Amino acid sequence: MSAYSALEGQYGRIGKVGQAIGFLQWDQAAMMPKGGAAGRAEEMATLHLISHELRVDQRIGEWLDAVTEGELDSWQRANVREMRRAYRHATAVPADLVEAASLAGSRCEMVWRDARKADDFDALAPHLTEVVRLARLRAKAKSEAFGVSPYDALLDQFEPDTTSADIDRLFGELEAFLPALIDEVIEHQRAHQPFVWPKGPFPIPQQRALGLKLMGVLGFDFEHGRLDVSAHPFCGGSPDDVRITTRYGEDDFTQSLMGVIHETGHALYERGLPAQWRYQPVGTARSMGIHESQSLLMEMQACRSREFLEFVTPLLQETFGGEGPAWEQENLYRLYTRVERGLIRVDADEVTYPAHVILRYRLEKALLAGELEVVDLPGAWNEGMQTLVGITPPTHRDGCMQDIHWMDGTFGYFPTYTLGAMTAAQLFESATLANPEILPSIAQGDFGPLVAWLRTTIHGEGRHLSTGDLVTKATGKPLDVAVFKRHLEGRYLNR
Amino acid sequence: MSAYSALEGQYGRIGKVGQAIGFLQWDQAAMMPKGGAAGRAEEMATLHLISHELRVDQRIGEWLDAVTEGELDSWQRANVREMRRAYRHATAVPADLVEAASLAGSRCEMVWRDARKADDFDALAPHLTEVVRLARLRAKAKSEAFGVSPYDALLDQFEPDTTSADIDRLFGELEAFLPALIDEVIEHQRAHQPFVWPKGPFPIPQQRALGLKLMGVLGFDFEHGRLDVSAHPFCGGSPDDVRITTRYGEDDFTQSLMGVIHETGHALYERGLPAQWRYQPVGTARSMGIHESQSLLMEMQACRSREFLEFVTPLLQETFGGEGPAWEQENLYRLYTRVERGLIRVDADEVTYPAHVILRYRLEKALLAGELEVVDLPGAWNEGMQTLVGITPPTHRDGCMQDIHWMDGTFGYFPTYTLGAMTAAQLFESATLANPEILPSIAQGDFGPLVAWLRTTIHGEGRHLSTGDLVTKATGKPLDVAVFKRHLEGRYLNR
Repeated sequence: MSAYSALEGQYGRIGKVGQAIGFLQWDQAAMMPKGGAAGRAEEMATLHLISHELRVDQRIGEWLDAVTEGELDSWQRANVREMRRAYRHATAVPADLVEAASLAGSRCEMVWRDARKADDFDALAPHLTEVVRLARLRAKAKSEAFGVSPYDALLDQFEPDTTSADIDRLFGELEAFLPALIDEVIEHQRAHQPFVWPKGPFPIPQQRALGLKLMGVLGFDFEHGRLDVSAHPFCGGSPDDVRITTRYGEDDFTQSLMGVIHETGHALYERGLPAQWRYQPVGTARSMGIHESQSLLMEMQACRSREFLEFVTPLLQETFGGEGPAWEQENLYRLYTRVERGLIRVDADEVTYPAHVILRYRLEKALLAGELEVVDLPGAWNEGMQTLVGITPPTHRDGCMQDIHWMDGTFGYFPTYTLGAMTAAQLFESATLANPEILPSIAQGDFGPLVAWLRTTIHGEGRHLSTGDLVTKATGKPLDVAVFKRHLEGRYLNR
Repeated sequence: MSAYSALEGQYGRIGKVGQAIGFLQWDQAAMMPKGGAAGRAEEMATLHLISHELRVDQRIGEWLDAVTEGELDSWQRANVREMRRAYRHATAVPADLVEAASLAGSRCEMVWRDARKADDFDALAPHLTEVVRLARLRAKAKSEAFGVSPYDALLDQFEPDTTSADIDRLFGELEAFLPALIDEVIEHQRAHQPFVWPKGPFPIPQQRALGLKLMGVLGFDFEHGRLDVSAHPFCGGSPDDVRITTRYGEDDFTQSLMGVIHETGHALYERGLPAQWRYQPVGTARSMGIHESQSLLMEMQACRSREFLEFVTPLLQETFGGEGPAWEQENLYRLYTRVERGLIRVDADEVTYPAHVILRYRLEKALLAGELEVVDLPGAWNEGMQTLVGITPPTHRDGCMQDIHWMDGTFGYFPTYTLGAMTAAQLFESATLANPEILPSIAQGDFGPLVAWLRTTIHGEGRHLSTGDLVTKATGKPLDVAVFKRHLEGRYLNR
């Protein structure tokens, strides 16, 4: 057996164990009764340990040394490239540090759940300090192994081949116009775009039926997936069995609706990954930024367009028996494109969202570099919020304690949200230019042309190309802030 | 670390992987969309392989040799005894034979699904012949490793410490009175117990609500379990998260209702297993016969009693808005205790069921011994059905092709159904004698006294004792056919 075949065998096994873990995570969030938690933690810890042992198997290193890349085709070479990356990440950090970080993360996350409710930063601080200390050590170990900066070494887990220098440049360009744009859009909407809220209650069975219908319209394949409920919506499962979740509120149908559309974007990406490369690294999603681009392309680009509102307005009226001004297309469009200064990232609209992300990116980079300590985080947070979003949080709960990411030790993830938003704008512009039928089809409730373009340019490519090459091949140029700016100005200032 | 601690570590890991597999099986039956099947098969094969590697790990043999049993307490010694059994089963059969048998079983099961529908025994025969051939080889390998007969070596997988000599004796005693008893009961019911069927349709949401309510009455803990739907009802999950399933028909509420009660009996057993021995062999269910005794104790003993009918009749009337003669307690009792000669084992009542099982036991023993070949199975089946149940199947579909067990290579399992039925009768008799409040409490919808008795005598014992010792400790004597006979004659002939 060749070294390459041996590698495929090993990573195939890793991929299948990973999928099993994915389904148990889905079950935990969507199905498991409360009392199952302790047992599930045991099962997961065991499978994670088995997966870890498979990923650090020394033979992988020997096979990677022995593989003759000249004899491989371009997909196989890309597969080996991603195996090298995975093996590097798996082996760079000593096992005891991995375990210490994992334990500290679980403990901090648990403390955070109560401390956030109580708005008690002091209770959180020592735990978060320990998490940051261990994250610095992990970043240092990876930095030494990869020969890149500590932050870039963590970023590589989520957004391979992108550096903090790239992000500094992109976010710098964004920040140059974003605060002024936010001011201008809010002023513009206040002057020209009043709207009224449709009145509920909106019964959950109708919301669910509507969500299922729109999933079908977008191209979700129910032979290979499900829609369920969980406290925090997500897309899980596997490419052949994609499980998305949502949550419903009876007083507002829009959140669940746009949430379902968002997760369906993720789901279409997973489903469209190259079937001949199942379980192999090259057959998985390119990066977190690209994944988010697929959800935001559906949620922000396609499904807040006037064309989609044209299609969906009668459906909404029919589903909820809606009549009168609140249910007119123009009002619903204004509702779906309203911009507000808010404290909470996950509730933010697409104009203010990048400001939330830039703040977190700057702070997590400073935390990792040792330029910021946890005790100084609240002050730095509030200052950044005022500069970037234009408001100051009255509480830590709605300030620096709002996100789960840092609590469990996840650093280097935040920028992918905004990379995804910019990529979504650029892909959607290119798609609609490449095929002028895409927007008129959406107005008819036909997402076929859009999804076909995404299948070919993005989904089916897996990790064959680097993120940069993938975006350039699809759109003719690297990620370009000007396109995102054009999108925001077009939609929100009618330019 | 002592050899014993090392063994606990290894079997703990095996237990947790096993639970993960259990949840994926539950998901496959209750949640998975059709298109997920191929991926799930891959995930399961990988986890089964990992589990197999853990179970045949040579170090287990070394630790078992090194363990100092004198230093262990009685639970630890029982744990080691069950580890020895598990290790023996895992290592007795060469890996290539295990794989060949597994493949042939999957293939035969697939062929069987279509062949059964088409009533085409000839299409099935070559595949089943191969399955039997490989089962004979597996049984021979285990026979040589354990020093018992081939059939007993397979039986030990499901009903440890019970031999075919034991079963021959018990089933011989049963067969001595059963055909005559069936005649007599049917004659008696024809003369004295006419009944009418309640008229449907019975809406599924009401059936589900009733099932949930009765699960609660029986003591099912919804903090640690769920009720869902699957094509073939079962009890899965883990002791801390027990997942039971049912299926509903709108024209008959009794099947789902009694099915839910049956699975709740299994679930109570799982939930009551000793918490301090989670994941260890000694902390699992004693045997398949004991497991079935817990489901049948609820379904057949407790919940077809006059006391339960007294409690449940008003609930049924209220749930389905039932009025008139069909909904009177006496009619429902007759409905729930009707006896019929039927072709299908899974639809059989408790009087005829043992006859179906004795037939299968005799035939599978003959198949394994080489005294019967697959081509001669239909003839032997029909002859046995006439002798034991008193009817001859008009088709193979409703004859020797009805059960899945042999198709996937499961031999040695069938007797556990009837061992379970007899054990249920004996346990219930002892329970109601030990605590005279049990039956009157059931009439009030209070299963507390019954479940408390089961928790102490059976559930909490895990595999601490052998099956024989467990039954003797609980009831004062070994399994005794006379008790089962007394139960049948009491209920069905008013003796």
